[in-house]
Amino acid sequence: MKALRFENNELQLAEIAKPISESEAVVRVTKSGICNTDLEIVRGYAGFSGTIGHEFVGVVEEAFDAPQFVGKRVVGEINAGCGRCEWCLQNDARHCPARTVLGIVGRDGAHAEFLTLPARNLLEVPAAVSDEQAVFVEPLAAAFGINEQVEITPETKVVVIGDGKLGNLCAQTLALKSRNVVLVGKHKEKLALVRERNIETVLLDDALRLNKCFDVAVEASGAESGFNLALDLLKPRGKLVLKSTFHGAARWQAWRVVVNEITIVGSRCGRFAPALELLKNKLVTIENLISEELSLSDGVKAIERAGQKGVMKIILS
Amino acid sequence: MKALRFENNELQLAEIAKPISESEAVVRVTKSGICNTDLEIVRGYAGFSGTIGHEFVGVVEEAFDAPQFVGKRVVGEINAGCGRCEWCLQNDARHCPARTVLGIVGRDGAHAEFLTLPARNLLEVPAAVSDEQAVFVEPLAAAFGINEQVEITPETKVVVIGDGKLGNLCAQTLALKSRNVVLVGKHKEKLALVRERNIETVLLDDALRLNKCFDVAVEASGAESGFNLALDLLKPRGKLVLKSTFHGAARWQAWRVVVNEITIVGSRCGRFAPALELLKNKLVTIENLISEELSLSDGVKAIERAGQKGVMKIILS
Repeated sequence: MKALRFENNELQLAEIAKPISESEAVVRVTKSGICNTDLEIVRGYAGFSGTIGHEFVGVVEEAFDAPQFVGKRVVGEINAGCGRCEWCLQNDARHCPARTVLGIVGRDGAHAEFLTLPARNLLEVPAAVSDEQAVFVEPLAAAFGINEQVEITPETKVVVIGDGKLGNLCAQTLALKSRNVVLVGKHKEKLALVRERNIETVLLDDALRLNKCFDVAVEASGAESGFNLALDLLKPRGKLVLKSTFHGAARWQAWRVVVNEITIVGSRCGRFAPALELLKNKLVTIENLISEELSLSDGVKAIERAGQKGVMKIILS
Repeated sequence: MKALRFENNELQLAEIAKPISESEAVVRVTKSGICNTDLEIVRGYAGFSGTIGHEFVGVVEEAFDAPQFVGKRVVGEINAGCGRCEWCLQNDARHCPARTVLGIVGRDGAHAEFLTLPARNLLEVPAAVSDEQAVFVEPLAAAFGINEQVEITPETKVVVIGDGKLGNLCAQTLALKSRNVVLVGKHKEKLALVRERNIETVLLDDALRLNKCFDVAVEASGAESGFNLALDLLKPRGKLVLKSTFHGAARWQAWRVVVNEITIVGSRCGRFAPALELLKNKLVTIENLISEELSLSDGVKAIERAGQKGVMKIILS
């Protein structure tokens, strides 16, 4: 089968054996989405070697221990745990110390014709959710996961920094909980994408004119400057949600965090079930985030394209 | 009167007018304590100019609007608010945007014969608390204030990093809530100070052998390396309490905070009333933290001494 692989510091479309598994489900990938994490891996920042990709929708071909899934259209949570640690016993493999992560840590990923995952990771996609929408479940869950960690009420004043895919989804999902969401970004055309969802948008250059009155700031730009802007905009005892897994060592003024008693909340993966519900109930707009759909055969070109200015989501199929 | 002042980038003992005030209480300072923040100010890191010092015990000489305080032995909360903002209206000036802070921000401090503070900042010292103990109320409140921000139960596994005065007080106060407190530091003799309080101590060089199982890590060393050690020792979704207001830009691996979904809690000042209760009930050991007591006239020498290796608290009287 074809697979988009990063090995020996090089990305290439390889022909490899179709996976077989007696303990996991084998899924034929229908579509996969390119995430910024894929780009970080290809830059060599994450120490991963193998098939990249972790956002997908597909159809189950085989599942020895979960035959009810065979033939079903599914998405899959990306953390596969040991099944025995304190985290796994709570049915949450996201922090299992022995976990593998689809296309990110020790497990071949989704930019391929087939992948395998434990059947317990799979969720059937409701008929009302298209393949194009379903491929967004993973980043949508990551965005909506902020609610697991920080209380958001209708009155909570929230600023999201970064108008890329992640910032867009964070703003959309936070706006389901709060009436006071502002999205800050550099790009007029990207900011315009959320306006139909009744979210205020502000260009980065104007952001410092905002009152320093926010209860919650979400850093989704992946830039050190985004982190510092968040500190500028939060009120004392405000919460800074860190979503971007930017690599390298960032500089920060720790004293500002202490003096203003800011809480910084690192936030990574969310749960898929509530995200599927959002899609099913048309509570978020996904379609306008897709810049282009390319064939898996053009995967190397697609990764290049995904890194270009102004490009949002690239889908492989 | 004599006052230890930092002006034009220079520390000196100056002779200045005794303060008079019609709106604030005038306090004759009995003893004042030298804090690391004083040392940071004298290094020019904090942009403060004036009389330094914020830890004190004294006797009220005048208080036009609160005559009941006159002649009383008092300590005083160091943040003086505007009295009208949302914080002040909750009787908490610690984050008033217009606040002054005794000897730190826009207000002459405690290393002087007299100081002034709003009468609402003062608390009478119970007879059972000595002057030597009372002068520790401010740092003790700062340490005990962690409980305001992070839930600590008897089972919570806590590591405190830094065996200086602040780390010592954090370990002692956290040990009142949790049975599982470990203090990590570089100095055998400083670690020994908490052992009578039934706190486990570990030398820094051995700290990486500790299990990465801590629910809460308190960074009280003021060093970038302390922050990174805290990240090493926390379990996923653990809480890192940042107590040190170290200045300059620290480097950090933000991705570790995101991947392990760590929460970083900036923590500054605590309330004085519960700290006075701890002293009154002999729940913390303070006496062994005093390295030396010097005359205010020797203030410049005392500040030098406070910065030397192995020295804990220096008291001025």
